[in-house]
Amino acid sequence: MLSHTSHPGNIGAAARAMKTMGLSRLYLVNPKFFPDAQATAMAAGADDILEQAVVCASIEEALHGVVYTVGMSARVRDISQQVLPPRAAMPQLLQHAQQPVALLFGTEMSGLTNEELARCHLMVRIPVNPEYSSLNLAAAVQLIAYELRLAAGQGEIEAPAVQPAPAEHVEGFFRQLEATLVEIEFLHGQHHAKLMRRLRRLYARAQLEEEEVNILRGILTLTTQYHGKLRQEVKAHVQGD
Amino acid sequence: MLSHTSHPGNIGAAARAMKTMGLSRLYLVNPKFFPDAQATAMAAGADDILEQAVVCASIEEALHGVVYTVGMSARVRDISQQVLPPRAAMPQLLQHAQQPVALLFGTEMSGLTNEELARCHLMVRIPVNPEYSSLNLAAAVQLIAYELRLAAGQGEIEAPAVQPAPAEHVEGFFRQLEATLVEIEFLHGQHHAKLMRRLRRLYARAQLEEEEVNILRGILTLTTQYHGKLRQEVKAHVQGD
Repeated sequence: MLSHTSHPGNIGAAARAMKTMGLSRLYLVNPKFFPDAQATAMAAGADDILEQAVVCASIEEALHGVVYTVGMSARVRDISQQVLPPRAAMPQLLQHAQQPVALLFGTEMSGLTNEELARCHLMVRIPVNPEYSSLNLAAAVQLIAYELRLAAGQGEIEAPAVQPAPAEHVEGFFRQLEATLVEIEFLHGQHHAKLMRRLRRLYARAQLEEEEVNILRGILTLTTQYHGKLRQEVKAHVQGD
Repeated sequence: MLSHTSHPGNIGAAARAMKTMGLSRLYLVNPKFFPDAQATAMAAGADDILEQAVVCASIEEALHGVVYTVGMSARVRDISQQVLPPRAAMPQLLQHAQQPVALLFGTEMSGLTNEELARCHLMVRIPVNPEYSSLNLAAAVQLIAYELRLAAGQGEIEAPAVQPAPAEHVEGFFRQLEATLVEIEFLHGQHHAKLMRRLRRLYARAQLEEEEVNILRGILTLTTQYHGKLRQEVKAHVQGD
């Protein structure tokens, strides 16, 4: 719910922000310009939200049927209302969300009016840099909608399926690595054990995947084969002289 | 760090988003238009961040001295990189933040290139509506900067006892690794680039320490020296027959 928004571009950007977080019901209380080409341009693919937006003449009309309203507060005011950061406020909003609830954002310049404030059950304030708190309206909508999405439990992201290598395959790699490093005389004498421990630690941190173990072993195998080939080639060359 | 940004307005809006959350060091890798009046307009009061922005010609230049890079991932890809939501990723970034760290955002349309991806130690993905994931670039910067601010406010960060290697040293290792793998003919033909990316990801995950880079480069140097020695030895042996 955006009240008395001055810049139509912000309305469009807010619609886009809402849609990225799965919200769709936009209410506009006395927008200065709406509909507007700039709003549509900023909405990108979220123009369906603009088309379905409900334009209201008053806050009273907009809040009709709403049981719980959370207002956006940009600055510290002398108000006797509970003010919470988004992470704490959104679960409270959700507790009431079996019936219509509202998130109310004031104008770009001055925020909510006293009349609007009085209708809020809870205020939410985004923690900002105290020396520069000029959060854009659509940016505020984005942050709040994001926190709402997380609070609603829709925060899981799909992780790519990785195939971690079983311990015995990783051990096989370490044995081959050690043998190769002995061959090239990287490992010898007193630092042998310490260097191997160091290398083990490095690859343990990386949590090698099956395919990576194969790649690394492939490198070691080719290194050894290359040594054999070198011997042959040089031999052939010298014999051919 | 914004790479190859198409719309200067997004650069300005990103600067504003950063400043609201107390961030100030903006790096721009090959921006399409910068400086630009639209960027300044969208920055509102954050034009100081634009003025101090560092414009770089390459990702390599931008990451000089950086020990830990978190990349923004917009979609699920078949990559063997760890992907975390912002709330889990930002504390990890902070753990490395006693030395320079970077948050890397790709272009509006296509995100990070494979080359950029390969330089990230961790990927972060914002949970979005799967049916409309079109998060604006500045909105993404806003959300990530917000999570970073919250994560930093939660106090105790473990100081790493390790000496992470700066990006340019890791690059030196990769160059030497590539040359060696070409020498033993592990890298050739069509799989060359893909295998190098895969190896880059593996070592990025491990977050190489300075000393480990030295160990790995030592192995590569000895491998090459061993090849030279082999040639000499076999030669001597054959001649001595």
